[in-house]
Formats: sequence, C-alpha cells, structure tokens
Amino acid sequence: MNSLERVPDCLRDFPSKRRYLVGVSGGRDSVVLLHWLLRLGYRRLIVCHLDHQLRGAAARADARFVRRLAEKRELECEIERADIRDRAASLEAAARAARLEFFARVAKRRRCPTIFLGQHADDQVETFLMQLFRGAGGRGLGAMREVSEVGSLRIVRPFLGVWRAEIDHYIAKHRLKFREDATNAAREASRNRLRHDFIPALEKKLGRKVRQNLWRAAHVLAEENSFLETLVPNDLAEAETLSTKELQQLPLALQRRALLRWLRAHHVREVGFEVVESVRTLLEPATTVAKVNLPGDRHARRRAGVLFVD
Amino acid sequence: MNSLERVPDCLRDFPSKRRYLVGVSGGRDSVVLLHWLLRLGYRRLIVCHLDHQLRGAAARADARFVRRLAEKRELECEIERADIRDRAASLEAAARAARLEFFARVAKRRRCPTIFLGQHADDQVETFLMQLFRGAGGRGLGAMREVSEVGSLRIVRPFLGVWRAEIDHYIAKHRLKFREDATNAAREASRNRLRHDFIPALEKKLGRKVRQNLWRAAHVLAEENSFLETLVPNDLAEAETLSTKELQQLPLALQRRALLRWLRAHHVREVGFEVVESVRTLLEPATTVAKVNLPGDRHARRRAGVLFVD
Repeated sequence: MNSLERVPDCLRDFPSKRRYLVGVSGGRDSVVLLHWLLRLGYRRLIVCHLDHQLRGAAARADARFVRRLAEKRELECEIERADIRDRAASLEAAARAARLEFFARVAKRRRCPTIFLGQHADDQVETFLMQLFRGAGGRGLGAMREVSEVGSLRIVRPFLGVWRAEIDHYIAKHRLKFREDATNAAREASRNRLRHDFIPALEKKLGRKVRQNLWRAAHVLAEENSFLETLVPNDLAEAETLSTKELQQLPLALQRRALLRWLRAHHVREVGFEVVESVRTLLEPATTVAKVNLPGDRHARRRAGVLFVD
Repeated sequence: MNSLERVPDCLRDFPSKRRYLVGVSGGRDSVVLLHWLLRLGYRRLIVCHLDHQLRGAAARADARFVRRLAEKRELECEIERADIRDRAASLEAAARAARLEFFARVAKRRRCPTIFLGQHADDQVETFLMQLFRGAGGRGLGAMREVSEVGSLRIVRPFLGVWRAEIDHYIAKHRLKFREDATNAAREASRNRLRHDFIPALEKKLGRKVRQNLWRAAHVLAEENSFLETLVPNDLAEAETLSTKELQQLPLALQRRALLRWLRAHHVREVGFEVVESVRTLLEPATTVAKVNLPGDRHARRRAGVLFVD
C-alpha cells in the first residue's frame, strides 16, 4: 500500500516539469489529487471536467466549482457537457465511457497524452467485487492498474494504493473544500450497497484484513490480466475472420481472450463469458453447429474453417 | 454448468473399463459420486477413505459405513487413519493435505494414478471466496479444475459444474444413505459462515445470478492460472539459487509466481503476497537491501546477483 506521505513509485516515470491532464470531478478524491500534485511540484496541469448532466443545477454548480478551483491555482481548464442518458448499458458504465472519450479528446487537442485520475484503494476493491459478482471473467476482474493505456491516452492513478480514510484525513488536515457526492449521481445502487453495507459487514465477520486482501487480489490479477493480454496475438483479435485452426492452437485461457476481443472489435454488444463460450462451441472438432446467436440479433458463423460475425 | 443427467466432457479421457480410485468420505457428495460412477459403468473402482480422527466414535462409524458401502457394491476398499491434530496451519488445510498424501500413497501402491473426487460447484464457489477474502493472489484464486495433477496423482472432479441442489435431488431420487456432516468436522467456521450466511445474503441483495457468476469467475481464473503456471520456467522455480537478472527479465506476473514456487520449494512456511513482495525488493536495481526476513526465522539473501534462502 502507498501513503499520501510519500511519492508512489508509479510517478517516477512522470516528471513534475512536464504537462499533464488531471481529471477533477470536484469530489473529495480529485480535489485531494489536485492539491497533492501541486504540492509535489506539478505546475503544468490541465484540469479536465465532464458535466454528465445527471444532476441538473447541482451538476452545473460542480462545473463552476471546478472552474474556480482551477482559476485560483492558475491552471488551464477544460470543461465539457455531455448527455449520457441515451446511452445503453448501466449509467455508471456510460458515464465512465463518456469521461474517457472526453479525456482522449482533450489529450489529442492539447497534445498532452497523460492524465492523472483520483481512484483510490477503496474504489479498486469496490470495482473488483462489483465485477466479480456480475460475472466478469479474468479480463474484467483485472480491475484498475496504476498506469494503463486506453487507445492513445495514458492513465495514471497515483492513489490506487491509498485508502479513502487517508484521503479524508488529508481533506481535514488541509481544510480543503469539495463538492459532496459530485460523482455519486452516476454511481449505481449496487456500488453504494457494497460500500456502505456489504464490505463493512464482511469486515465485521471476517476481520479487518478482508479489505486489504481483496485489494491485493485485485492488484495481482490486474498485473496477470495485463500480461495475459500481451499474449493474445493482435492480428488474430482484430482480424475480419478467425481461423478455427489457429484459435484451437491457443491455450484455452487465450482462446477466451482472443474471442472476447474479436467479438468486441466487431461491436457485438454485451460480450461476456456465456457469449464467448457459445462461440467457442464452433471450434469443437466434432461439432455440427455452424451458427451461434449473439446479442443484438447478430450471429457468429463457421464456414470452411473460418469464423465470422454478421 | 453440467448436470448429473449427462456425462461431463472431462470424463471422455477416462474410459469406464479402466481402474480408478474414488475418494469417499461417506458424506452426501461422495456417496452420490460413487453411485453415479457405478451407473455410468465404472466397475473397477477402489474406494479410498481417510479417517482424520477428528470426530472420535463418529469418525470410526464413518469408516465402517464406507467399508460396508464398498462391500455391498463389491468394490475394493482402502481405509487409513491419520492423526492430523499436530499439523500446523488450519485444520481444513491439514485434513486436505493428509487426504492428498493418502490418495497418492494408494495410487502408487495400487498402480492406479487417477482418483475421482466429489467436489461440486458450491464447493468451488466457497473455496474461491475463502481464498479471496484471505488474500490469495492469482495462484491461490485459481480454485479447483475438473482435471488437475498433484505430483503424480491425477485428480478428476466430475461434479465441479454441478450444484449441491442437484446432488440433494439425486440423493432423494435414489434414496441413498449417507453420513450427515461426515466431512464437516474438518470444515472451518468461516466456510460454514460463507455457506449458510454470507452467500445467501449476497444472493438476496444482488440476485440469484451471483452464485453462478462467482462460479464462472473461479472457472475462468482456474484455467488462466494453470496456463500462467506453464509459463514459469521450471528450472528457475526449482533451482537452489535464483539469478536476479533472469528473474528481472520475466514479466511481473511471472516473477511473482516463480518466487512463490521457489520459496515453497525451499519449504518456507506461509508464503503469501507479502512475503513474495518483500523478496521482490531484493531485485530492485537501486536497492541496498541484501536480506529479507521470512516466516519461521528464515531469510532470503542477495549476494553477487544471486538469491538464496537460509
């Protein structure tokens, strides 16, 4: 675990004299992140805030709060509004996707490819459990890493090993102002239930180390996940069609990951374990199945030793 | 998931005309396993039962029950007694280790390397959660596989995709007798709490799919775990000393696994994430640390680019 008292190892590769984006919702975590980075000497920060428009007047007040915060610290600021209510899937997932797209746009426009985000150890544990209970396999379970890439955007999360309690302590010590629950609007009921109900109950029953143990599992799996991803041949996962023979030669663990990426690259919706496993039946040598139904009225087909999606 | 109504794929490689061991505690799961295998035409089974001596008279009655069951079905039978109370670690872990050693002995003596065991889908989910809450990393999280090897013993678990409810149903349908709680003596309080308290509460809050989702995560991770293990160079993990340079060249995920196996091969006790990570500090190029304390008053040392344990 890390502490706000010392500079985490992951910052070594990001010298403070360079330019960085920083995601600021206005909530306690990102307010601490901004304050903490400035104290470490990061001066060339561009504050990024996406107004999801989920909270009406409160959301506009969040944006004003962030703009003023940036002005006070003499930082550049990028604020955008997005209407995410029309998007499919969960509100939280939609908000996250909209934020990432916004950050990537700013990164490109500003020629500043790296962003600091304020997710902390409790976020990591909650995300890990949510994905676990919802049925993510290895890939989804990987949770967040301190340094990761999404397209050409590089994401750095210096607080990933810092508990919320320490962030609260920092807020109190430095008397920082923040917007209460600025991000909670897009946070789902099940995450709140995990945070306020389930994880405390677990700690009460099994001892205080549970949270730490879950964090560790998420940490190790994130690393293993990212390593496994490097083993999936890119040309396979991004190809128009898949050779069943090539797929069969991969170990099962990589077959699943290659199919997952391939189906997502073809914009098949809601690809999870069930979908991947049903497509995998097309690989069985003895199978007579040549077509598998996919979500959104789409299909995976096998013809002449080749898989394709229509 | 599988069903008792159809033969699971994993049995394909184990034709019914050959000889197999089968672990029978006398509890409902193994009683169903034996009955079910016989119905599938497996006739050359050797019933194996280890009396852990944890339940006094009840344990001896379990052994008599199993012996009679074998006699009635005209099967050979191997029963042993073991006192596991002196062993370290948890009682459940000690009982499992003693059973595996016993099975391996019988396998060698009878020249019959494969054993069928009755663990089912609920066992898998409980084991997975227990390990998760206790802080297992990727390796410990791998949970059970349908077919696995421990030394020269091959373990087949045909019920790993079958829920306990279906086993109960089979018991009722075929009016099978079994010893209630035959294995519960060696089962820890935390597992019972998971089974009777925690998992039902989770299902109530998050819906019935939770159990299925956890099973799936365990299933996928078991496969990925076993694949990752094949990538750890054996000569490294079993070597007397480790070259820091060779270790540094491995991806982090494999460094952790190589160190874990290496430390276990040197009989270091209670090797977990903390221990592995502290030994990993010896690899840092800039480190001045040359010694790390290990459990049981042992040490990992670095000297002239080489790690060793004393």
